[in-house]
Amino acid sequence: MSKLRLSMSMSLDGFVAGPDQSEEHPLGVGGEQLHQWLLPLKAFRETHGGEGGEVNASTPIAEGILGGTGATIMGRNMFGGGPGPWAEKRWNGFWGDDPPYHHPVFVLTRFPREPLELHGGTTFHFITDGIESALEQARAAAGGNDVSLGGGANAVQQYLSAGLLDEMLISVVPVLLGGGARLFDNLEEPRPRLRQVEVVEAPGVTHIRYARLDPQDVAANKEEHDA
Amino acid sequence: MSKLRLSMSMSLDGFVAGPDQSEEHPLGVGGEQLHQWLLPLKAFRETHGGEGGEVNASTPIAEGILGGTGATIMGRNMFGGGPGPWAEKRWNGFWGDDPPYHHPVFVLTRFPREPLELHGGTTFHFITDGIESALEQARAAAGGNDVSLGGGANAVQQYLSAGLLDEMLISVVPVLLGGGARLFDNLEEPRPRLRQVEVVEAPGVTHIRYARLDPQDVAANKEEHDA
Repeated sequence: MSKLRLSMSMSLDGFVAGPDQSEEHPLGVGGEQLHQWLLPLKAFRETHGGEGGEVNASTPIAEGILGGTGATIMGRNMFGGGPGPWAEKRWNGFWGDDPPYHHPVFVLTRFPREPLELHGGTTFHFITDGIESALEQARAAAGGNDVSLGGGANAVQQYLSAGLLDEMLISVVPVLLGGGARLFDNLEEPRPRLRQVEVVEAPGVTHIRYARLDPQDVAANKEEHDA
Repeated sequence: MSKLRLSMSMSLDGFVAGPDQSEEHPLGVGGEQLHQWLLPLKAFRETHGGEGGEVNASTPIAEGILGGTGATIMGRNMFGGGPGPWAEKRWNGFWGDDPPYHHPVFVLTRFPREPLELHGGTTFHFITDGIESALEQARAAAGGNDVSLGGGANAVQQYLSAGLLDEMLISVVPVLLGGGARLFDNLEEPRPRLRQVEVVEAPGVTHIRYARLDPQDVAANKEEHDA
């Protein structure tokens, strides 16, 4: 079965957005520092209509984040437009007419809304019946490819607590934001067990890939250790 | 001048001790998972009277943590014995008669106490006049070697906020503790700026070394970037 994968940039103090998020500051105050490793990359600029850019140890990581998934799931806060019922003045996301997804995006919300089809293959579907339903629909739409969990912190916490997240790529940046949205918070018992899979040192960032350790893996590890 | 260096194991969700710390659980419940990368190492076992053990990518890291500093500073909570005035039943730390420090250790406390000399070169000095004084005394005692900041979270936060911490080695373990003592919390403005210096991938842990970025370094970086 296709995997549900998360890629997020996190400050050393655990935040994936700074304090005081707003339409003007979608990543909160200071939150733009979280992506300073990504934005100058050629791999990023190409997918966002830019030219030139750097190639470094983060390049394969960025390519993996930007490609290879067939659908994306995100929380309402990441799609934006404020909380509560959809306003009459239509909010179509932070990404303009041609969002960088180029595949179906499933937005978790309590407020129904018709699908929003934009250019370049990105259609936003608004899912009101829970995270399992969103994952099921995203998997169907992804056609065998992996599904990307886009964020934000709250959506990640829900999938993590439900044991539905297969893989996490956490890009730890050398920044102390001091406040904002904490990625690993509100985790319910039993908390997911993780296995460190890969580490990539790159300029101004450390990428760490984790996989979910399933109960049978835990037992197998123990046997191996006891043997 | 000799550096003030910190080495701490931190869970992926930012804790350096689990919840409900006690004499029985000095690292809190579940906190022992933070050092699972360290305890099986030959380099660790040798300094703690054990034999055998593993050699892996964490070995040079462990050797760097365990050696090379001439004095240690720690918070009262890390020394232990509960908060408040020293009890009549003398608490001599968690480490027995021959603690693994083998150099002077300066304990930050509000409660005066005579120095405690144990075996193997470890003498605990109890410092009641603040973190700057402790650092000054530790530097003098270290005789040109670096000073190690042992923890816990509260002591680290004080030195970090005061801009006195020169280097941090954070060993990120693939564990979600869900609660306890957060390392990077209560940081005052202006928050310290950091530079990622080195990353070491090792079994079950990612070691990341950070240096303090001084204001002149920030300016120099900017010039380089603008050039």
